[in-house]
Amino acid sequence: MLSFESDYTEGAHGRILQRLTETNLEQLPGYGSDAYCRSAKEKIRKACGCPQAEVFFLMGGTQTNMVVIDTMLQPYEGVAAARTGHVSLHEAGAIEYHGHKVLELPQHEGKISAGDLKAFLEGFWQDENHDHMVFPGMVYISHPTEYGTLYTCRELAELSGICREFRIPLYLDGARLGYGLASRNTDVSLPQIARYCDVFYIGGTKVGALCGEAVVFTKNNMPKYFLTRVKQHGALLAKGRLLGIQFDTLFTEDFYLEISRHAIEMAELLKEGLHKKGCRFYLESPTNQQFLIMENEALAGLQKKAAVSVWEKLDENHTVVRLATSWATSRENVEALLELL
Amino acid sequence: MLSFESDYTEGAHGRILQRLTETNLEQLPGYGSDAYCRSAKEKIRKACGCPQAEVFFLMGGTQTNMVVIDTMLQPYEGVAAARTGHVSLHEAGAIEYHGHKVLELPQHEGKISAGDLKAFLEGFWQDENHDHMVFPGMVYISHPTEYGTLYTCRELAELSGICREFRIPLYLDGARLGYGLASRNTDVSLPQIARYCDVFYIGGTKVGALCGEAVVFTKNNMPKYFLTRVKQHGALLAKGRLLGIQFDTLFTEDFYLEISRHAIEMAELLKEGLHKKGCRFYLESPTNQQFLIMENEALAGLQKKAAVSVWEKLDENHTVVRLATSWATSRENVEALLELL
Amino acid sequence: MLSFESDYTEGAHGRILQRLTETNLEQLPGYGSDAYCRSAKEKIRKACGCPQAEVFFLMGGTQTNMVVIDTMLQPYEGVAAARTGHVSLHEAGAIEYHGHKVLELPQHEGKISAGDLKAFLEGFWQDENHDHMVFPGMVYISHPTEYGTLYTCRELAELSGICREFRIPLYLDGARLGYGLASRNTDVSLPQIARYCDVFYIGGTKVGALCGEAVVFTKNNMPKYFLTRVKQHGALLAKGRLLGIQFDTLFTEDFYLEISRHAIEMAELLKEGLHKKGCRFYLESPTNQQFLIMENEALAGLQKKAAVSVWEKLDENHTVVRLATSWATSRENVEALLELL
Amino acid sequence: MLSFESDYTEGAHGRILQRLTETNLEQLPGYGSDAYCRSAKEKIRKACGCPQAEVFFLMGGTQTNMVVIDTMLQPYEGVAAARTGHVSLHEAGAIEYHGHKVLELPQHEGKISAGDLKAFLEGFWQDENHDHMVFPGMVYISHPTEYGTLYTCRELAELSGICREFRIPLYLDGARLGYGLASRNTDVSLPQIARYCDVFYIGGTKVGALCGEAVVFTKNNMPKYFLTRVKQHGALLAKGRLLGIQFDTLFTEDFYLEISRHAIEMAELLKEGLHKKGCRFYLESPTNQQFLIMENEALAGLQKKAAVSVWEKLDENHTVVRLATSWATSRENVEALLELL
Repeated sequence: MLSFESDYTEGAHGRILQRLTETNLEQLPGYGSDAYCRSAKEKIRKACGCPQAEVFFLMGGTQTNMVVIDTMLQPYEGVAAARTGHVSLHEAGAIEYHGHKVLELPQHEGKISAGDLKAFLEGFWQDENHDHMVFPGMVYISHPTEYGTLYTCRELAELSGICREFRIPLYLDGARLGYGLASRNTDVSLPQIARYCDVFYIGGTKVGALCGEAVVFTKNNMPKYFLTRVKQHGALLAKGRLLGIQFDTLFTEDFYLEISRHAIEMAELLKEGLHKKGCRFYLESPTNQQFLIMENEALAGLQKKAAVSVWEKLDENHTVVRLATSWATSRENVEALLELL
Repeated sequence: MLSFESDYTEGAHGRILQRLTETNLEQLPGYGSDAYCRSAKEKIRKACGCPQAEVFFLMGGTQTNMVVIDTMLQPYEGVAAARTGHVSLHEAGAIEYHGHKVLELPQHEGKISAGDLKAFLEGFWQDENHDHMVFPGMVYISHPTEYGTLYTCRELAELSGICREFRIPLYLDGARLGYGLASRNTDVSLPQIARYCDVFYIGGTKVGALCGEAVVFTKNNMPKYFLTRVKQHGALLAKGRLLGIQFDTLFTEDFYLEISRHAIEMAELLKEGLHKKGCRFYLESPTNQQFLIMENEALAGLQKKAAVSVWEKLDENHTVVRLATSWATSRENVEALLELL
Repeated sequence: MLSFESDYTEGAHGRILQRLTETNLEQLPGYGSDAYCRSAKEKIRKACGCPQAEVFFLMGGTQTNMVVIDTMLQPYEGVAAARTGHVSLHEAGAIEYHGHKVLELPQHEGKISAGDLKAFLEGFWQDENHDHMVFPGMVYISHPTEYGTLYTCRELAELSGICREFRIPLYLDGARLGYGLASRNTDVSLPQIARYCDVFYIGGTKVGALCGEAVVFTKNNMPKYFLTRVKQHGALLAKGRLLGIQFDTLFTEDFYLEISRHAIEMAELLKEGLHKKGCRFYLESPTNQQFLIMENEALAGLQKKAAVSVWEKLDENHTVVRLATSWATSRENVEALLELL
Repeated sequence: MLSFESDYTEGAHGRILQRLTETNLEQLPGYGSDAYCRSAKEKIRKACGCPQAEVFFLMGGTQTNMVVIDTMLQPYEGVAAARTGHVSLHEAGAIEYHGHKVLELPQHEGKISAGDLKAFLEGFWQDENHDHMVFPGMVYISHPTEYGTLYTCRELAELSGICREFRIPLYLDGARLGYGLASRNTDVSLPQIARYCDVFYIGGTKVGALCGEAVVFTKNNMPKYFLTRVKQHGALLAKGRLLGIQFDTLFTEDFYLEISRHAIEMAELLKEGLHKKGCRFYLESPTNQQFLIMENEALAGLQKKAAVSVWEKLDENHTVVRLATSWATSRENVEALLELL
């Protein structure tokens, strides 16, 4: 059966498996201290145009958000995020489980606005009772967002400016960062993200890797004894090579962007086809996730032949459906899906 | 200077201090195992018309919410509450600090509606991804609310019915319960609260005591080894007598209601005077907290002569102000305040 | 029935109740911002000879240990303590519940030795794998200890020196501090404690107060936003006056020491009588807690007429029993107890 | 350079990489719901002789201990373990960070004794103050232990019997379980472990996999909503196939035991050679970890040519050194190491 359910239905890009195989019997030290991790970090620093960046590899998105947020916040602080942010809704409360409130802001197609953020932060500090409240200690954004949308450079700059004014870090969740960078409708590059964000992660799991996310601290701000804290969260991998080799491959000769571009091309192909068929889009997404409004009956029919992601109920008769392409999506499958619709 | 800032500006009712003094040199066992605690619990069970109720005394409101919520929830559960609920806004994140998300619901003058609650709970269980989300494990309401408003019996019954349908407890924060019970505009009594709620607390700190809240578990549902868990939260008082004697006094011959009625009378007097002077009310409160809309200049003038609570900014020129009466408010002070306005 | 079970069987010293009564109807601001709290803090600073000390009032011993340790440690740190320390054994795991390991050191009549501490700290830092371990972030001692014993000035100086060498704070649990200061066999004064310790608390609950402990930060090291963090632990009292007035009374004209001396006199009287009767002591305690070795049968007989504290089983036929005097113990009761033995 | 530093210096067994490659482009659902995970679980159930077993795959040892212990314990419970247990010493406090005390028991070459355990549990329940203490809620053992030693079937049966008497689960950390099962000096098989233990894990990371541990709940006792709780700990892998395929390979035709036996053969060869050379052993280990006592100078010399693990200082002149073989150790390397010594 066809699947456009998510961007993590396949294993890893073949080149990654090949590198894992080639290096397999080398004896390497553990916990990320091997040469492949070092090399991968160096390549990421270069790609970010940020020579002082500190890079750490973790396993998955929720784990990364949990570790980064918990280690960067003070215990009396929470993280501000869109109501639809992954940390607010879909991490089983991992942030709160580790002691921190998610301070929810209004969302605009998955994004937060500089205006809302500023009003919230000013309101907090003006409130006479703010010492009985949770201090905003970080701003979380996802790019692409959970709705596939992207911030513009100007929006990032504004959010970054507000964060600096209030002296709290801006954290960007880049689970699908490749698909954001490779979009045709973006003016945001990796060096700009490194410039505007205090910390962000480059997603591997959804962009060609078996697993793994690369956290980048851009301002000499990696929390003290970070390895120990990662271990304390059960997130330190013994065979760090598994992550190092994957990211080393992804950041060799622009490979990360190259495979991301493929996903975007497939998404454009899909989009074009859907438009031709008169499908209704829930919103305009410039990345690999496309959101359709489908009649429930049509959806039921489709689901017999293709796996898609049921996003949310729109009304009694309609459902929002997500179709995702990835580095692994074939042109044939896109065409087959279009025929089904 | 006059103060209508809160309902906890004085010490304790004189009768309480007298009882503390009379019993002071009796040698009593610790941690709530003394005869006064036993007697107070028995009187509370009677007042609640709930012979099987389990009662435990804690020190303050935030502590009580934190202990009750943390010990009754499973680790994967959060508590649903109005956005304006004390647990959402004004407990410095104590609920999240102990691992649980506050699942925010819309508020209507401080209350949650049965419709919103039902839609939220149904939505959760219908969501295909709900095992990646925080499970709703309890419903929190305050009565009176943070805005002084009250649920009706029917509203409590509806909320209770929904909670039972979804098999989660209904928890009522009664920090100012006396002032709710003594209101002229309520059909809710203590036995009805005991009937509809699975757990609630009877506020002492704001209703005549130096400190202390009485948690009542109505359905044989006090968490196992509760004393140990209270201790683990740093909330177990060595000299439990301090709480036992106070609640024993408050629940002797209806004294709790009697002193609460005084606060309501003073609030009515104040309200009447304010209406006569043409003051604008932010909302209609039937209890001891009254919310006025004041011009900022008038407020500044008032604050030179009387302490009031600045609640929130309404617009550029107006502020919402809270005036609170209590068991200790004198008629003279109400009249003096009215003259100032 | 006679009770020598603990030093918290009575309420408060009469003078404290009197002050609470006298000030009862004054309208005071909440959360420790009232004039009595300010005055009490100033008196404590003077008694400590430490003008820069920051003082904060909390409710009880376990709460105080939990708040101080959790707010002063980094998340990757634990607290070193004697195996018999209150934080290790008798706080229902409150320290671990808030995320920190208690790193257990050998105990010598309840005390830790400078040698053991130094070896432990050096061992940690020399261990090649210490970044996979819990960092020692604080040293906890109790004075008097759980066995009534006292550190000498020299011992405190040594422990303090080691802590400074390793840049971690020395924390002294003074739940019974008055009885330590008032002992005839001590060279340790309050100013010396303030000098050697980075943080300590002066116990009220066991030394004349209804409740309350005064935490003293001696090195401008009170954790940032401490009030918020106290609230987050459910430990912020609305009517802070209850603690302020009690400590203001205890620290007026040396009253704290005066009532402590009475407990010591009663302990000396008891000790002398016990020696005369040929009782076996488990260890030599210079404070208000005395530890006897009793035959189980004799103990059973005694328990019919007097409440004592069963400390631990020594062997099949013998039990270690604790007798505690306090500020409230009468000469008559000591004599009555001696007659029973 | 030769390395006998640990049993996780290589990648994965070639057969695993091959299977990952073969299945790489299959589109599979996420979070462990794919067919490979199902197949692997079924094979593990068979290997354990435990048809009702519930199996869940996690990433690494510390993560597994943290998740299992935190989800199986009640909040007021701690886990009893040898002082030298991995959870006590080398997990950066992950157990305490998630709220639970490690209740340390004496160790005997890494093992706990039934006598010590029974005395500890009886002591707890007999202690009059046990409700002020941490409840023992689980027993943790490692097999092989951190010192390479093994429990006998009889010892397991005894520990299991005590746990059942006190109604707490027995948890076995099998990070190196293959090397225990393949030892020539053991009477313990996988079905016996499944019989005596309430939960255990089969280590993959150190026994042929890139990463991964298989948790086995043997008594229909997997915690409710376990997937949600795993997610909450940041431990749920999106591409669950990575773990499913590896364990499916390891549990096809006894492959797990087969590769484990190789490590044991290499360890025996090493041991024999070391004995011939007159080396001093710290203790007798029947598994893949061997502990030598070396003079510091000799060690320094060796370290120039081979990586070994410095375990602990024995005295001023001697160090305990660990040499580990694994599924990947070659006969040539063992011989080369022996020549160096």
